[in-house]
Amino acid sequence: MDTRVKLDTLFDLEKWSAERLHRVEQALDIWVGRNAPPTLGEPMRYAVLDGGKRLRPLLVMAASEAVAGNAQAALRAACAAELIHAYSLVHDDMPCMDNDVLRRGKPTVHVRFGEAGALLAGDALQALAFELLTPAEEDIPESMQARLCRLLAHAAGSTGMAGGQAIDLASIGVALDENQLRQMHQLKTGALLQCCVMMGVATGEVGAGVRQTLSDYGAALGLAFQVVDDILDVTADSAVLGKTAGKDAQQGKPTYVSVLGLERSRTYAQELLAQAQLALDESGLKDTNALHALAGMVVGRAY
Amino acid sequence: MDTRVKLDTLFDLEKWSAERLHRVEQALDIWVGRNAPPTLGEPMRYAVLDGGKRLRPLLVMAASEAVAGNAQAALRAACAAELIHAYSLVHDDMPCMDNDVLRRGKPTVHVRFGEAGALLAGDALQALAFELLTPAEEDIPESMQARLCRLLAHAAGSTGMAGGQAIDLASIGVALDENQLRQMHQLKTGALLQCCVMMGVATGEVGAGVRQTLSDYGAALGLAFQVVDDILDVTADSAVLGKTAGKDAQQGKPTYVSVLGLERSRTYAQELLAQAQLALDESGLKDTNALHALAGMVVGRAY
Repeated sequence: MDTRVKLDTLFDLEKWSAERLHRVEQALDIWVGRNAPPTLGEPMRYAVLDGGKRLRPLLVMAASEAVAGNAQAALRAACAAELIHAYSLVHDDMPCMDNDVLRRGKPTVHVRFGEAGALLAGDALQALAFELLTPAEEDIPESMQARLCRLLAHAAGSTGMAGGQAIDLASIGVALDENQLRQMHQLKTGALLQCCVMMGVATGEVGAGVRQTLSDYGAALGLAFQVVDDILDVTADSAVLGKTAGKDAQQGKPTYVSVLGLERSRTYAQELLAQAQLALDESGLKDTNALHALAGMVVGRAY
Repeated sequence: MDTRVKLDTLFDLEKWSAERLHRVEQALDIWVGRNAPPTLGEPMRYAVLDGGKRLRPLLVMAASEAVAGNAQAALRAACAAELIHAYSLVHDDMPCMDNDVLRRGKPTVHVRFGEAGALLAGDALQALAFELLTPAEEDIPESMQARLCRLLAHAAGSTGMAGGQAIDLASIGVALDENQLRQMHQLKTGALLQCCVMMGVATGEVGAGVRQTLSDYGAALGLAFQVVDDILDVTADSAVLGKTAGKDAQQGKPTYVSVLGLERSRTYAQELLAQAQLALDESGLKDTNALHALAGMVVGRAY
């Protein structure tokens, strides 16, 4: 399979990302937890600020730029997606779920602030995501606000991320085949990543054909992300990963590596990358360098 | 203080409510958890269906009818508000929060489905609330959808319900004065109840003056609800209440009864009822019988 590198050789992902992340970090710092009671605002800010690769915000902004979308809406959608991701990590790390003590190299939220603090902070972060998408006094059409909420709610809920987590929990010690594993991951991780692309698209005006190609890109990238995550869980160490490595295997969770083996998992990740790149080419959009580069980063990352 | 009964003597709240609740229960049955993985859908449905007074849905629908609003939007907002309420109870009952085993006369969700199931079901119910508010193919203007999301997200999050719960948690064993207690309850319970009224209003078209009077009505009703809740916590028994009575006092939580005493709390509830009724009169709206009657029910209820 040809994984043709489609990047403009002049495109500098690091520079592109740094500029966008500067705006995202500033916005999150302003929007998260400042007006909350301190016992809630502190764990909210701890969970969100100063950590994470921010892949989801970058995907929203790259997709928005590809369709020449509304930049203010893209910034809000980027932050909203990150809040949904952050809240899911906070709840997922709790003792009744994965019982993890280390995240992004720091103690997890419930270790630092107690379980009740982690529970409430997660709940408040989810609500804040939808609050960010629906500002009363900004130049974002309310029809666009509604569409962004629709995409995010669907991707976060029982037919998306939360549904995937439930299947994941129910699968501990259960032998899944590749299709079942793919289905679980499409919900658990893929739905939100694909949603980031589609929220970016929703900040602009494109036809159904372009929308479909970017949806395909998002689906392939979302799955690739999880395949690589499973590979890294067995090949990287905790210090590099910033979280406890080898956890999935320990817990008897089915992973791509356990189902396909390490080598076939690596090949599969490359195939998904090629699918994502192909979808971008088929979109006919001009400004897809960042989307191309982000897909490459997802598959090439070391943590 | 004159708590003038403003009800049309011909108005039958029970009949009015039964008709609305029939639609709400049918809608919830269709919308909640059916497409979710079973291990998630079951606790979601258990938490929401066949229980509760449904005060929040009734408030949404009464307010929507008062402003001759969009009935389909009102039904969705009614269900969305109930989902936010239901998720907050599921999480609130968990061991790390109130650790309650009885709710609406049944074992709480975490007792029945485990803590992970309760955590995820609550998370998914919150997302579903925003999904219900943003249907793709229905005759609800997207601008209205965005406004409903804005109201609900604000009322549910760190500057509303979740914020109030955080203050509540931090107040165990702490002596609050009446102002601090009011502030806590305005967030914890009042914000969502007031939001129900304002979502109903947002399904129609009214001027800022009318909106303000209904906002005042919602604020008074929300506070009255909590005062009566605190009274019932010490005067009702668990069987009638459908939850563990006397819990607040046991946990050293400040309540209106502990701050004002029982008699002054009762008087205060009547004063708030009068404020709510007055606000309705000042709205100049004609069809406020249901809103009047619901306020009366909130203050007169035995459970």
